[in-house]
Amino acid sequence: MPRRSAAEAAVTRASIVARAVEVASVDGLEGLTIGRLADDLDMSKAGIVGQFGSKANLQRAALDEASEIFRREVWLPAANEPPGLQRLLAICDSWIRHLAGTAFPGGCFWTSASIEYDARGGPLHAQVQQGLRRWRGTLRREVKTAIENRELPADTDPDQVVFELQGLVMGLNQALQLFGDRRAVPRARRAVRRILELE
Amino acid sequence: MPRRSAAEAAVTRASIVARAVEVASVDGLEGLTIGRLADDLDMSKAGIVGQFGSKANLQRAALDEASEIFRREVWLPAANEPPGLQRLLAICDSWIRHLAGTAFPGGCFWTSASIEYDARGGPLHAQVQQGLRRWRGTLRREVKTAIENRELPADTDPDQVVFELQGLVMGLNQALQLFGDRRAVPRARRAVRRILELE
Repeated sequence: MPRRSAAEAAVTRASIVARAVEVASVDGLEGLTIGRLADDLDMSKAGIVGQFGSKANLQRAALDEASEIFRREVWLPAANEPPGLQRLLAICDSWIRHLAGTAFPGGCFWTSASIEYDARGGPLHAQVQQGLRRWRGTLRREVKTAIENRELPADTDPDQVVFELQGLVMGLNQALQLFGDRRAVPRARRAVRRILELE
Repeated sequence: MPRRSAAEAAVTRASIVARAVEVASVDGLEGLTIGRLADDLDMSKAGIVGQFGSKANLQRAALDEASEIFRREVWLPAANEPPGLQRLLAICDSWIRHLAGTAFPGGCFWTSASIEYDARGGPLHAQVQQGLRRWRGTLRREVKTAIENRELPADTDPDQVVFELQGLVMGLNQALQLFGDRRAVPRARRAVRRILELE
């Protein structure tokens, strides 16, 4: 019954990846080991190696899955808003909700991965850099559209706004994760409006 | 000659700690191992264990040293400024210079440590939390003084300002470390003035 076994393999793979994302969000992608996952999932190491081949492939799969979660929680809820300021505000809103939520036990996956690989070379560095660069591009596009729509002042610098939003979210992650400070959520909302000079 | 040997031991200890800070800034405090340091410094593992006793003590010593570097590079250059806005701006200036500089090969030590320990318990979590809380307290004090001096508007929320400054610096660290984007330095300076509503 090859069909059933392919479906089962997909379920197994998905459960390995889901656990890998959880582990990596706390201990980092470098903290992912096949032995540890095998223990956590009560599987054999051979069963995991059979699915992924190597630790590097497993790390890549975890990063892909984290991207997909981010896309689903942050981009999709905003995707149907009209381009420009409205969509930008919707993105910031779902971004803040995503960080305040429980998607990853260790907090913002991308912040952690960015810190982990900023001074390390290799394929994961490139994948993290590419993912974050694409996200910055998405934000920049909305800021530019908002300027074209005259929803933001003509002298707004899109790169400045993107830079400030990115830092804001990292600060929110720190306040929530390290200090458990939920007041950071309304502060982050307010800071978005300050960055966009809406208040 | 017990005196000479104590001095020698202090030099050895300092060189171990200096290397530990470098390693931890790239690979994290969890990435510090006695074996790795022994290799890097061409010492025996027993020589390092003799100085620190345990990996946890070595991690603590590295974190203490990173605090001292931060204090020397960020706080001290601003300490003689008059309290309030002037000192706050001097702190932000030296903070940005510190991050743009070469103190740590892996970028902001505290950002890395904060990410590393935010979802992990234990004594290092407490030490990182305490260090960052103290720093937030220092910033808050200067903001409050600036409000009392009428250098900042009376309705300024010190916690909001501290929250935004902290995130800004994390964003600067990401832009510099992950993207090698030096334009982030003037952007960070500009963002400080925007956060303080000075422009």
